[in-house]
This record gives sequence, structure tokens and C-alpha cells, in this order.
Amino acid sequence: MIGLGLIGGSVLRAASAVGRKVWGATASEADAAEASADGFAASTDLDAALRKAAERDAIVVLAVPLTGLDEVLRKVAACVPHCLLTDVTSVKSAVLSSVRRLAPEARYVGGHPMAGTTESGWRAGNAALFGGAAWVACLEDDTDLAAWAEVARLALDVGAHVVPLTAAAHDEAVARVSHLPHLLAAVLASVGSEGGPLAMALAAGSYTDGTRVAGTRPELVRAMTEGNREALLPVLDEALGRLGAMRGSLASTGGLAATINAGHQGAQTLARAREVTPAGVRVNLEAPDARDGLRALGERGGRITAITDDTAIGEVA
Amino acid sequence: MIGLGLIGGSVLRAASAVGRKVWGATASEADAAEASADGFAASTDLDAALRKAAERDAIVVLAVPLTGLDEVLRKVAACVPHCLLTDVTSVKSAVLSSVRRLAPEARYVGGHPMAGTTESGWRAGNAALFGGAAWVACLEDDTDLAAWAEVARLALDVGAHVVPLTAAAHDEAVARVSHLPHLLAAVLASVGSEGGPLAMALAAGSYTDGTRVAGTRPELVRAMTEGNREALLPVLDEALGRLGAMRGSLASTGGLAATINAGHQGAQTLARAREVTPAGVRVNLEAPDARDGLRALGERGGRITAITDDTAIGEVA
Repeated sequence: MIGLGLIGGSVLRAASAVGRKVWGATASEADAAEASADGFAASTDLDAALRKAAERDAIVVLAVPLTGLDEVLRKVAACVPHCLLTDVTSVKSAVLSSVRRLAPEARYVGGHPMAGTTESGWRAGNAALFGGAAWVACLEDDTDLAAWAEVARLALDVGAHVVPLTAAAHDEAVARVSHLPHLLAAVLASVGSEGGPLAMALAAGSYTDGTRVAGTRPELVRAMTEGNREALLPVLDEALGRLGAMRGSLASTGGLAATINAGHQGAQTLARAREVTPAGVRVNLEAPDARDGLRALGERGGRITAITDDTAIGEVA
Repeated sequence: MIGLGLIGGSVLRAASAVGRKVWGATASEADAAEASADGFAASTDLDAALRKAAERDAIVVLAVPLTGLDEVLRKVAACVPHCLLTDVTSVKSAVLSSVRRLAPEARYVGGHPMAGTTESGWRAGNAALFGGAAWVACLEDDTDLAAWAEVARLALDVGAHVVPLTAAAHDEAVARVSHLPHLLAAVLASVGSEGGPLAMALAAGSYTDGTRVAGTRPELVRAMTEGNREALLPVLDEALGRLGAMRGSLASTGGLAATINAGHQGAQTLARAREVTPAGVRVNLEAPDARDGLRALGERGGRITAITDDTAIGEVA
């Protein structure tokens, strides 16, 4: 595990709890010291951790911020060039392109656990963080299926379910349901706080909920939104278009029915998606169309919940 | 109590629980039947409820949607023209202007309890809804201070603290911290659900929190946002300006630091406002500058927590 912050530290704890042999390195002396104090093999010696991975044929998991990724990838290419490599970064196309450039021999499977809190650092982590969470495991046209299954097993072991997707499909979806929420929360928190102490005194649930993720560390929000620029721009334009049309309608006719009804339908879409009872699906990992079958499952909102020797078992609405 | 939905029904229960004599009327046969079944004096006979208010010199509380308000005000003017009148509607300038037009003899004090859920109707209400909530009680230049104190006592009795403000100051603040959150939630829920089942499958806390209030009944959101058009338009423009600047910055330099840092500061502003220990304040209600003192307290984010015969006792950061 390279990086022992909230996500890396939680994966390390959870993987260790299910009996996997784990060790970690981090550039943060504080995180290394705290992880060691909690009984984990952790240090600030990245080279040593990677050499050990080479010796043991371990999965190398990158849990460093996007801004520090290239430097770590160069070390990976130098110390353990053919490793099974994954990451937990919240954008996938940018990381895929960095891996192809800097560690082209690695058997890379992009990953993104959709879990987190507004806290960060080793102390914020816990082994239960991924219980019930979606964990995207990327399947490109050239991804080795056996490597994909290994990474999926790690995600399943730590309590998540696995969503097989291309990096591009992942990035488009998270622009909508993760990056746009962070940016709208930032806008709301800015406009709200311009109202001074009175506005803060009157702020109730709608404001508290709408601004909650604006409390996330700015560097993390910048890394994920700026790192997903290509997918995020059209989504921002959709939001701007809807907000502008709403403004025009309020100014001209005084009516907001279109905006508010569409939002209500959107809220119901989410509620229905969470209520539906999914049907079971099995994908034979040795079949020639396994890759297509897995990606189609992911794109339909489905998930993998177990993997046997040759079969991925899942469900979809 | 005219209107026995979430807010009216909750005020009725809470006022009854502290020993006030209460009765209600509503246009909803379901709400009237359910309130009666719960042991309250409730019917669909608005005239009878208002005549009883005239006989007993009761406070008349309007808890009907903004769209039904004018019709009820005409009845108030006919049945109980000089009553002490208040309301629980989420916009205040529009209601004030309706009251001045349709029930000009009433001793009116605008009110707005800053509490609610996404549910509605009598069954959704409960006597504890206002515990710890802000309840704006409006003080215009011509509001009778004794009437204001009576309405403030009702709000205090049901567990709220009282924020004295002009209707205009209220409307500007709630445009920022209540109406804008509802509209941004609607935009987010629309853009998110356009991503289909995959986007819904990947939606985690940031999306769930950011869209929660989009589940509110559309008529209620329309009533409060459309009814606050004048104060809401400049706030929408602020949000559009910030979102547009962000979009431009992402497209040109790729950077979102300004937006994200400002949002983080805004989140901290709210957190600090909730952590600070306020200082006690007393306002002599018989002093010539009582009105100014109360409004200044409200505008600084302060609150009234008790009222004796001649003194409002409060606190401000």
C-alpha cells in the first residue's frame, strides 16, 4: 500500500483483517508513525516497500493524491516494473494515461472505491469504510482479465461490491454524482456565507446538507475535479444551462416548475434505484465475451458481489 | 390554526402540549380527520374556526401554502378583522403585502419557523419539530411591539428561539440558505439522473446529501421560491456568476482553486458560527429603541430565548 491516508489506511486495515499480508509506505511521517503504532508494517521508505512487493509478487495499491502519482509511478517502474498494479484515485482516465506513460509494463487495473468522509489521514481511516460501498474496477480493451479478477477480489475482501467499467464511463458518471456535488456545495457555501451571521443563524437542514462536502480538504477536491476536466466540463455546462434557464424563467414568467419538477423526478429516480430488488447474474470469466458482459453489467448499474475461480457472480436491476 | 399540514399540525400539537387552548381548520379532509382522530379540535369549517377565534381573542396562525393565502386572508378580514395574526410561511415580504391589502386591520406579525422535513401533511408533524430551531418573528416599522411579543412567546413555548427581523432581511437571508439550496439540489438531481442507472449506482454521500431536499413536494418548493422572486434573483445571479467563473477557469487554466477554497472557507464560517459561545443580551421592550435593538440583534445572528413581562432575553455571538 503506497499512501496511508484515509483510503489507503482503511484498505490496509481491512485487507489485514481478512488475513491478507499487508505493508505500507507513505511520504507522511505522521501517517507512517501512527500506522506503525497501530501494529502495521509501515514506513516512509517507498523503495523498500516496492522491493518487498517485487520479492513477494504482491498487488501494489497506489493510494496517493493524484498530484503525487507520477513520482510514485516512476519508482514503481524502476523497482517492480511488471507488478499487478491498482490505485484508489477518484479519476481514472488521467491515471490510466499516466500509467501507460510511466509504468507501461505494469499489469494495471484502475480502481476507485466510492467511499470516504470529509476527514483525512491515517487516524481518519477504519476497516469498515468500504462496507456496502461500490468499488469501480476498470476494464479497458487491453486489461488482463486475470489481473482484473485479482483486484476485484481485493475489493470484495474489504467489504465492497465491484462495478466493472471503462475509465471513460467511470469518469463521466463520477463527474455527475461526485464532482458536480462538490462544486455546487462550494458555490452554495460561498453564496450562503456572503449573507453573514444572520444567514448562518438561519441555516437549517437544506443548507447544512447542501454544503457538507465543502468541508472536505480543498487539495483533495481540487485533485479529483481538476483531474477529471474533460468529463467534468460538459457536466458543468449542463448544470449552468439548467441554472441559467431557471434564472431566466424566474425573471420572466416568475415560474420555476420545470426546474423543480425535474429535480423532484431526479430525486425519485435515485430513491427507486435504491429500492429495486436486483436479479442475479453470472459471468463466465473464461468466455470470449466476458469483458463485454462485465462492462455491460456495470453500465446498467449492476455489481459483482463474489468471484469464484472462473465466474463473477453479481446482480443488476 | 388555519392549515394542519406538517408545520401547522406540529405547532398545534406543541402549543397544546404546553397547555395552550388550540383548535384548527384545514381545507384537507384527510388532515382534519386525522387531527380529530388524534384528539384535537379540528374541522374543515374555516368560518367556524375564525368565529371562535374572534370570540376568544385568540392568536390566528396561518399555516396554509402561499398559493392559498389570499383566500384565507379575505375570510380573516370578514370574520375576525382585528385579530392578532401570524403565519408560518417561508417568505415574508409577499405575505406582508397580501395582509396589508386584504386584512389591513389585523395586528399582523410575520413568522417563519426554520424547521421542516421533506414530508408533508398532518401525519408528518410532531410536537418536537421546533426544538432548537430558529423562528423568525418579523418587526416592521409599524408592527405593534406587544403583538410581536405575543407571537414570540408562542414560538418560545413550542421550543424554538426567536429571531427578530424585517421581512426584507428575512427574505434575503433565506434566499441564500434555504431557497438556493433547494434550487441547486434540483439542478444536481436533474444532471445526476441524466447519467442513468450507472450514475445512480455510483452515487454516494456527496450526491445523496446534495439532492436530499429535491425530494420535497414540488408545490412547496415552488411556493417558497417563486414567492421570494425579488430577493432570490440576485442570489441566483451570484451563484450563476460563481459557477460560470468556475467553468471558465476549468476550461482555460484547468484550475478550480478559487472556487474550492472559497467554498471551504464558507463551510468553516458555518462551523465557527455554530461553535461560538454567545453572550447574553437583554432588550427592554418598553424602551423607545426596543424595535431597533431587537432587529439589530437578529441581523447580527442573535436570538431571543425568553420573554418576561417587559424584557426580551437573548444571546448573540
